[in-house]
Amino acid sequence: MPAHAAAAHTTRTTARITAVDTYDIRFPTSRSLDGSDAMNPDPDYSAAYLVLRTDAGDGLSGHGFAFTIGRGNDVQVAAIEALRDHVVGRSVSELCADPGSLSRDLIGDSQLRWLGPEKGVMHMAIGAVVNAVWDLAAKRAGLPLWRFLAEAEPEWLVSQVDFRYLTDALTPEQALTLLRSARAGREARTADLLERGYPGYTTSPGWLGYSDEKLTRLAKEAVAEGFTQIKLKVGADLADDVRRCRAARAAIGPDVRMAIDANQRWDVAQAIEWTNALAEFDPYWIEEPTSPDDVLGHATIREAVEPVKVATGEHVQNRIVFKQLLQARAIDVLQLDAARVGGVNENLAILLLAARFGIPVCPHAGGVGLCELVQHLSMFDYVALSGTTEDRVVEYVDHLHEHFLTPTVIRDGHYQAPLTPGFSAEMHPESIAAYTYPTGTFWAADLAENAGDPTEGATA
Amino acid sequence: MPAHAAAAHTTRTTARITAVDTYDIRFPTSRSLDGSDAMNPDPDYSAAYLVLRTDAGDGLSGHGFAFTIGRGNDVQVAAIEALRDHVVGRSVSELCADPGSLSRDLIGDSQLRWLGPEKGVMHMAIGAVVNAVWDLAAKRAGLPLWRFLAEAEPEWLVSQVDFRYLTDALTPEQALTLLRSARAGREARTADLLERGYPGYTTSPGWLGYSDEKLTRLAKEAVAEGFTQIKLKVGADLADDVRRCRAARAAIGPDVRMAIDANQRWDVAQAIEWTNALAEFDPYWIEEPTSPDDVLGHATIREAVEPVKVATGEHVQNRIVFKQLLQARAIDVLQLDAARVGGVNENLAILLLAARFGIPVCPHAGGVGLCELVQHLSMFDYVALSGTTEDRVVEYVDHLHEHFLTPTVIRDGHYQAPLTPGFSAEMHPESIAAYTYPTGTFWAADLAENAGDPTEGATA
Repeated sequence: MPAHAAAAHTTRTTARITAVDTYDIRFPTSRSLDGSDAMNPDPDYSAAYLVLRTDAGDGLSGHGFAFTIGRGNDVQVAAIEALRDHVVGRSVSELCADPGSLSRDLIGDSQLRWLGPEKGVMHMAIGAVVNAVWDLAAKRAGLPLWRFLAEAEPEWLVSQVDFRYLTDALTPEQALTLLRSARAGREARTADLLERGYPGYTTSPGWLGYSDEKLTRLAKEAVAEGFTQIKLKVGADLADDVRRCRAARAAIGPDVRMAIDANQRWDVAQAIEWTNALAEFDPYWIEEPTSPDDVLGHATIREAVEPVKVATGEHVQNRIVFKQLLQARAIDVLQLDAARVGGVNENLAILLLAARFGIPVCPHAGGVGLCELVQHLSMFDYVALSGTTEDRVVEYVDHLHEHFLTPTVIRDGHYQAPLTPGFSAEMHPESIAAYTYPTGTFWAADLAENAGDPTEGATA
Repeated sequence: MPAHAAAAHTTRTTARITAVDTYDIRFPTSRSLDGSDAMNPDPDYSAAYLVLRTDAGDGLSGHGFAFTIGRGNDVQVAAIEALRDHVVGRSVSELCADPGSLSRDLIGDSQLRWLGPEKGVMHMAIGAVVNAVWDLAAKRAGLPLWRFLAEAEPEWLVSQVDFRYLTDALTPEQALTLLRSARAGREARTADLLERGYPGYTTSPGWLGYSDEKLTRLAKEAVAEGFTQIKLKVGADLADDVRRCRAARAAIGPDVRMAIDANQRWDVAQAIEWTNALAEFDPYWIEEPTSPDDVLGHATIREAVEPVKVATGEHVQNRIVFKQLLQARAIDVLQLDAARVGGVNENLAILLLAARFGIPVCPHAGGVGLCELVQHLSMFDYVALSGTTEDRVVEYVDHLHEHFLTPTVIRDGHYQAPLTPGFSAEMHPESIAAYTYPTGTFWAADLAENAGDPTEGATA
């Protein structure tokens, strides 16, 4: 148990988790083509959201969610509900002192494991529940999650990691060594983080559905706002991509980094050809050139598109695939996602793997609340693990932050370190009431008005 | 469209799919420790089952299912229901003439794709629906599925395969060449299959929960019944495994093959150590030595445990991971599963990949109805693709066949070729009525009697 956590909940140690309340929350983002890319033309950003209620009497609850893009959010909610019996009735103090115990129980439920194992809907549900526990634990400790993690003992952090299937690349002893050697300079890095924040980059200019004029305007705005990297979606049409990359490069000048992102659109040979065709615009990385499952494909692509870097991770299902991407030298940039894998515990494993292999982590964000969550992981990494922000940036997309109690704050292209206790995961009750599908006030009115289902209609 | 399919449905081409009925069917297998292994101590074999109804007036319906082992079967049913709008209202004749069109639509639904992509709960749901279409198509053609496939034109079979992410290992042209070159000798192989059947092997003796006495007795029975290979579950305790392997080898003699199966229990180094510790009992293959996601891990293990072969596949999520297992020379035996991936279409891709790399396919079966389904795929492969049964066996487990209208028939260790039209997927209405969870007659009585939920209680 981390010392700061022990101090924070001495009052009512008999408190239990009394409920796991779930919500199917959907935002009609497809109507503005925000978030449109070569594989996802019309996402309705959604959250399969849950709240852990307790009888602690301290007014605290734990919030977590899986991010989806519309249809199927109900399936994701059903998966979270399938975990309820593992959580309700647990001791709050024991759970918060050792979230790894729940993580192991959820991943280890052999019947549920059959549905993965450790991938897809069921694994994202586990991640949502585990993240809600971390939210609650950090709140009870009175600390933002990044600081809760950064101040924890290395031994305790290592105890939170499931090393199954990792020991050929990372052992507990090696993890401990990495964490211990990062202790020097922690205070200075914390001070730097509180002052300057953590570097971000923005995808807002580059959605595929935007006009060249909008792209150019937003790219210039991004540079003016202090971002040193932007990202463009590519992969639908090469001539369009050439034109858009040229416009973007002209807008940002030679010194700002421009990443490109194909969202898994290509086979291996096509990825190489297309990326090299865009090389004249000096892309910094090519993101998701092909299937996130294709470790060997990424390795082949990486060798063939140098010096363009290869990045992936937002759809990488678990630590085992990340391990192989690192072992095969298939990526230059590791893009973990806060809500795709099994929660903070598995992301600790992934951060440790990246540190072991010396590969920078530039997390995926955007969607609903992903920026809010993942900033904590990168800030922990800076303070207490990798010890650097060099070549590291967290994705930033300026959508839907207004629905969160403690939205991300960007200043001069940097995420400002959250100061509020918790994982920044909590949504406004009004947002939940409006956007719960299909009964929330927004959807009820919208469905009545359209006498149909616009989220279903999009591809019907 | 295959010529035989066109001939069979000339009457009412305006017929539509009118409903996708779903059922949460669970069998209380955990009570007898049937199916127990090192990772799955107490499975309740279950099916998330669906029926495609039509208004064709021919009395035919399409049946399909995903196999699970208990808890979470409701999540799997919810995932199938999320696909309903893609299916209801479709033309039956168009669907059956080109199941690949539905497969592409389901896999290509970008919002649902986010929940995978192509893995876990959502992908198994797609497989269940796609397989139900194939069941219906074969019934309408008046042919068992293996024959429906084996008699189809190579060009049409290739049109049923999604080559996305495969072309660095297998192109449509290469697939066509493989199928065309297998046409010689088709009639003789069909006759052989109808006479002799397809070789099976049995896992029935080797469940981890069985006593040594039961293991020995069942192993001897298996040999007496004509099986030339058995399989033992291993991985919980090495001393136990040594004792059980010794007993099994003594029971079957030196000439019958004995496979061992760790059900993903080990890390890479442990898999190597443990397998080599059992080498004196001459295991034929080690199955699932580690995570099904770990392509590179399997490659390392394979090199270190030679001459013991490495087998995996029942939990391999899709064709992309199989492609890499073959590219990395990580497996000697490919164990596809009829209900894990995206249905017949993706299994065609996997069979073609295996043929291209010259690796034998020995499918996973057992569970509920997996033997019934997968026999068709191996029989098609024998008649019209690989052209051989050498070193090829289909797993056989003698559980729950009585719930199917046309259960598998084993004679002299061989699966007898099904003659009834369809995919052998259809369950008796009485079985559905009894084992639908929790309202079916069996479960209603059981739950009332126990005033609790035994499937939930197993790990509570």
